[in-house]
Amino acid sequence: MEQDTLTAVRLAGEKARAASRLMAAASPAAKVQALETLAALLEDRQAELISANAQDLEAARAAGLDAPRMDRLRLTPAILGDMAAACRYVAGLPDPVGAMDSQWQRPNGLLVGRMRIPLGVVAMIYEARPNVTVDASILCLKAGNAVILRGGSEALRSNLALGGLLSEALRSAGLPEDAVQIIGITSHDAVSALCRLDEYVDVLIPRGGEALVRAVTEQAAMPVLKHYKGVCHAFVDASADLEKAVEIVYNGKVQRPGVCNALECLLVHEAVAGIFLPMVARRLGEAGVEFRADARSLPLLGSSAVPQQPEDLGHEFHDLILAVRVVKDMDEALEHIAACGSHHTEIICTENHRSAMRFLREADASMVAVNASTRFNDGGQLGLGAEIGISTSKLHAYGPMGVNELTTTKFVVFGQGQVRS
Amino acid sequence: MEQDTLTAVRLAGEKARAASRLMAAASPAAKVQALETLAALLEDRQAELISANAQDLEAARAAGLDAPRMDRLRLTPAILGDMAAACRYVAGLPDPVGAMDSQWQRPNGLLVGRMRIPLGVVAMIYEARPNVTVDASILCLKAGNAVILRGGSEALRSNLALGGLLSEALRSAGLPEDAVQIIGITSHDAVSALCRLDEYVDVLIPRGGEALVRAVTEQAAMPVLKHYKGVCHAFVDASADLEKAVEIVYNGKVQRPGVCNALECLLVHEAVAGIFLPMVARRLGEAGVEFRADARSLPLLGSSAVPQQPEDLGHEFHDLILAVRVVKDMDEALEHIAACGSHHTEIICTENHRSAMRFLREADASMVAVNASTRFNDGGQLGLGAEIGISTSKLHAYGPMGVNELTTTKFVVFGQGQVRS
Repeated sequence: MEQDTLTAVRLAGEKARAASRLMAAASPAAKVQALETLAALLEDRQAELISANAQDLEAARAAGLDAPRMDRLRLTPAILGDMAAACRYVAGLPDPVGAMDSQWQRPNGLLVGRMRIPLGVVAMIYEARPNVTVDASILCLKAGNAVILRGGSEALRSNLALGGLLSEALRSAGLPEDAVQIIGITSHDAVSALCRLDEYVDVLIPRGGEALVRAVTEQAAMPVLKHYKGVCHAFVDASADLEKAVEIVYNGKVQRPGVCNALECLLVHEAVAGIFLPMVARRLGEAGVEFRADARSLPLLGSSAVPQQPEDLGHEFHDLILAVRVVKDMDEALEHIAACGSHHTEIICTENHRSAMRFLREADASMVAVNASTRFNDGGQLGLGAEIGISTSKLHAYGPMGVNELTTTKFVVFGQGQVRS
Repeated sequence: MEQDTLTAVRLAGEKARAASRLMAAASPAAKVQALETLAALLEDRQAELISANAQDLEAARAAGLDAPRMDRLRLTPAILGDMAAACRYVAGLPDPVGAMDSQWQRPNGLLVGRMRIPLGVVAMIYEARPNVTVDASILCLKAGNAVILRGGSEALRSNLALGGLLSEALRSAGLPEDAVQIIGITSHDAVSALCRLDEYVDVLIPRGGEALVRAVTEQAAMPVLKHYKGVCHAFVDASADLEKAVEIVYNGKVQRPGVCNALECLLVHEAVAGIFLPMVARRLGEAGVEFRADARSLPLLGSSAVPQQPEDLGHEFHDLILAVRVVKDMDEALEHIAACGSHHTEIICTENHRSAMRFLREADASMVAVNASTRFNDGGQLGLGAEIGISTSKLHAYGPMGVNELTTTKFVVFGQGQVRS
């Protein structure tokens, strides 16, 4: 690793750590002011941002970046408007810092509570998506954290331009500009250096493809919040309302197939497979969905079905492809999910209360639902406001992470001179 | 690493993972029954346990284990009685699994809540302390987890005897015996193998000296909950009640100096140093405390004081030694704590409300207190019931970890056919 990279990244860590103490003590009003100023800047300085972004886009096009990634890299007036709206939305959320949900008294008269506090310094490693720069910064700011951002190199000019506005917004509210550190070093060494910064960084959040997340997790010396992938299942029970179920399956697979909460595998109870699967074949077949069908479902799914290969189970297609399996009961469905699921999202379609409650209890995923689309596993949809990602590991946060998930609690004790005997 | 060790540890992981699904679905009554049966067994089978322990003690004595460690290794009827009492206490705690603190409705009619669920498989690596075997097992059992235990090799016979009773208790309640896995391999390879078991283990909790915790943290492929050390400070403010303060300082340093929540450093506001430090010298001097004094406190602390060396600050003495420093104000005290503290326990003695509230807000530690001894940072003392350790990292748990800290929450969504538009 280059010594210069190490030194630069360490310096960013030191600055963020120092700023985090001031951020933790910042008033709610100052944080709201910074967020509202940022919203205004994102509207007023569109020309400057779009010009920086145009340079990124031009270089990326020359380098042959693929279309979906070009899309994510692009800033438009509409996208900047959405960012401004997000700033105002987060500004309006309750300030989490200092909140105590409850206090209790001990027999010796000590009053004990848990006070919500910032995590400290959050570091994010992500791909070339300038919107993540703003989402991560505003959520961290609201939660009283400092943040270190290392976005994909293709977005560097856009990120630096956004970082300039973030500095201005922080300064205008009397908050430390160092609370947002944008790592401008585009080499992979910068990622490795960040992974070793456990002295300064409380949590690292990698966001991107599975390979990036795995590489960062393996290197990181500090705790990591992550999700690898979403292999989401729907189980259509014997007592499902099949009209509702087919719309839920359609929505899960078709509405936005490229995202992590899209449906990847349909499990159907054998008692209804004969009626339900032809309905699925018609409704999803129209949308161009290809079925990877097990032996029992294959004859029921018509011409869009092909025989399932073992690797089709537990696979995230990110496409208009759906694995289908007929199961003999709930036990077999839960076994399948335990073996092939990714702890992301699992749903059941049923009108039977006992089946619903058993599934909700026993399916192990960050979101489980009865009679609702997998697509609802999203911070905005679940009512958290904005989100910084979806965790599929269980420690600290399981599911979408909003402002509260960027905080922790400490024990606060009010005494009158108590000592321990 | 020996292939046999790897195979044996992986097998324990597989069994624990399979058992964890049954434990997660176990009824509260079955868990209570297992805990109460274990309590009875710990009382009825004392002879057998004490005989196994006697073999451990004999081997340890022959190997020259030091006195404090021999003490921690020893099982007596009184200690076994305490273990039985702990089982009954934990049995009586509310069952955390399935609890939902709140539910909210989304504009589209979805009902959303967060359901408390077990973590899954917890692994503990600890020193030769048979009481940890029981504490960890009963807390994990109550929380619906499976647990893998790798205690210090000197306690192996004791741990296997306790493990036998745990199996019996689980079986009597119709719960899977595999929910408690005791790793009987005494080589260090077993620790390394456990650290790579991320496929089966949701969280690893190392408990012991700083070197053990660091080694495990560096190797672990899964999330780790840990604390390295407790460098606890007391700040005696200008407006402190000095009579109360001297008792709090005495209790923190003298009551049990070898533990992590003992007081290691006293910070005194310069306005009261001239009166307060001679009081400290008298009260703690009687108990044989040695002071490592900065230049301003040295003349005020009498004959038990020696000049402070730089390495005395931020140091965990685990002994009747106290570092002392005079500070000019709260800012200097908070700076000192930020630089030298260990995020464990920090307290202030003050009768000034503003000082108290500022300190509670700004001192960054898993427990902060006003006018109470550092010794209260303990799961039992804070009202959590039993504890499995004290976390000084902020993710997931910050402070003592009880039954609830061995769980997480998932999102649970009740729909009536909702899809995303």
